[in-house]
Amino acid sequence: MLDRPYTFINSAMSADGKISTKKRKQVKISGKTDFDRVDELRAGSDAVMVGIGTVLADDPSLTVKSEERRKRRVAEGKDENPARVVVDSQARTPPTADIFKKGTGKRIVVVSQAAPADRVAALKEKAEIIVCGKDEVDLEQMSVELKKRGINRLMIEGGATLNYAMVSRRLVDEISVFVGNLIIGGKDAPTFMDGPGIAERSEAVELRLMKYEQMDEGIVLTWKVL
Amino acid sequence: MLDRPYTFINSAMSADGKISTKKRKQVKISGKTDFDRVDELRAGSDAVMVGIGTVLADDPSLTVKSEERRKRRVAEGKDENPARVVVDSQARTPPTADIFKKGTGKRIVVVSQAAPADRVAALKEKAEIIVCGKDEVDLEQMSVELKKRGINRLMIEGGATLNYAMVSRRLVDEISVFVGNLIIGGKDAPTFMDGPGIAERSEAVELRLMKYEQMDEGIVLTWKVL
Repeated sequence: MLDRPYTFINSAMSADGKISTKKRKQVKISGKTDFDRVDELRAGSDAVMVGIGTVLADDPSLTVKSEERRKRRVAEGKDENPARVVVDSQARTPPTADIFKKGTGKRIVVVSQAAPADRVAALKEKAEIIVCGKDEVDLEQMSVELKKRGINRLMIEGGATLNYAMVSRRLVDEISVFVGNLIIGGKDAPTFMDGPGIAERSEAVELRLMKYEQMDEGIVLTWKVL
Repeated sequence: MLDRPYTFINSAMSADGKISTKKRKQVKISGKTDFDRVDELRAGSDAVMVGIGTVLADDPSLTVKSEERRKRRVAEGKDENPARVVVDSQARTPPTADIFKKGTGKRIVVVSQAAPADRVAALKEKAEIIVCGKDEVDLEQMSVELKKRGINRLMIEGGATLNYAMVSRRLVDEISVFVGNLIIGGKDAPTFMDGPGIAERSEAVELRLMKYEQMDEGIVLTWKVL
């Protein structure tokens, strides 16, 4: 068993499993109550992680939005925001990304050995750099490295490629997904979990339904990964 | 307002919104209780409809499985099985399909004017043929034609292309989906609703959550289309 953080994915998808339009354009799927739930999940995590695709498409700040929650963290001796982690094999994170500009707290960019040295050097001024994996980030090794840095509770906020990569490598303990009251459709729209996907039923990641709760105009499903 | 049947979609998807693997290989998503729920829905419908993609990939029979339910239908003066309808613009349904071979009851193949005459002639021996639309089946006209034939309650059982085509044209009243306890993943795996999909939030089909019910190892969500 890897010595890694307790890791959970949180996402919002349409009733047909999409997380954005076919053009990767973000659409409002959930509502205020769910935003607040997500903020609480962030505030309770040691780190919040996204894939480079999400940084490039959405440029999220991943900060804790509630001032009260930030104060609570500080009172507990923590940074205002959990560490913000980007999985970025080729060091493509723009040094101008919101993740660096907004809020205080630690930033970590995880790159592979194949990442161009100049881009890594530029990111080093903005974040701690962790190198693991040859051409692509080795997610198992990354998980261990994060744990070594005191990250015991890790929240993954997408996108579809990272979600599937982490879950298919059995590096995820729990999944919660807000299912919203709309249909997005689209053969090419990003779904909650993309990547290569399974070829046989036996390869499927098995879950157990832990909880379901009506929220805003949708429902939050919480699954344990078996 | 079109004079069309009350129309609902029923499907089963993985927790990440997939209905099969990337190779269109069917996988077991739900369990016995859900199969029984689907059988009851079929038995209570005047027609059960699928798209040609589903016929070619899965060759479903779409019959009512429970003998008791078939007897009940007959006692009510109906055929043992609801009419089975294939939406098939080019008349590609194989005359050897299970939908023709298994069970008694009416079959309808809906084709476009562009369907090759020889294939239409071959299908005419197996099913009633409804022609509507020039190059593709005109779904609005089809809905009206089905209603004219006494189909007041229409169940759609996929696939992803037909589901989206019907819902995006506002020809669907209700959607129920079993969400199963597994992750299938795959950028190219068919999802609950594919087709072109929306480009803007304003194009999304809005739903209202009517019901949710834990079943087998998953949960059934029932949405009203607004």
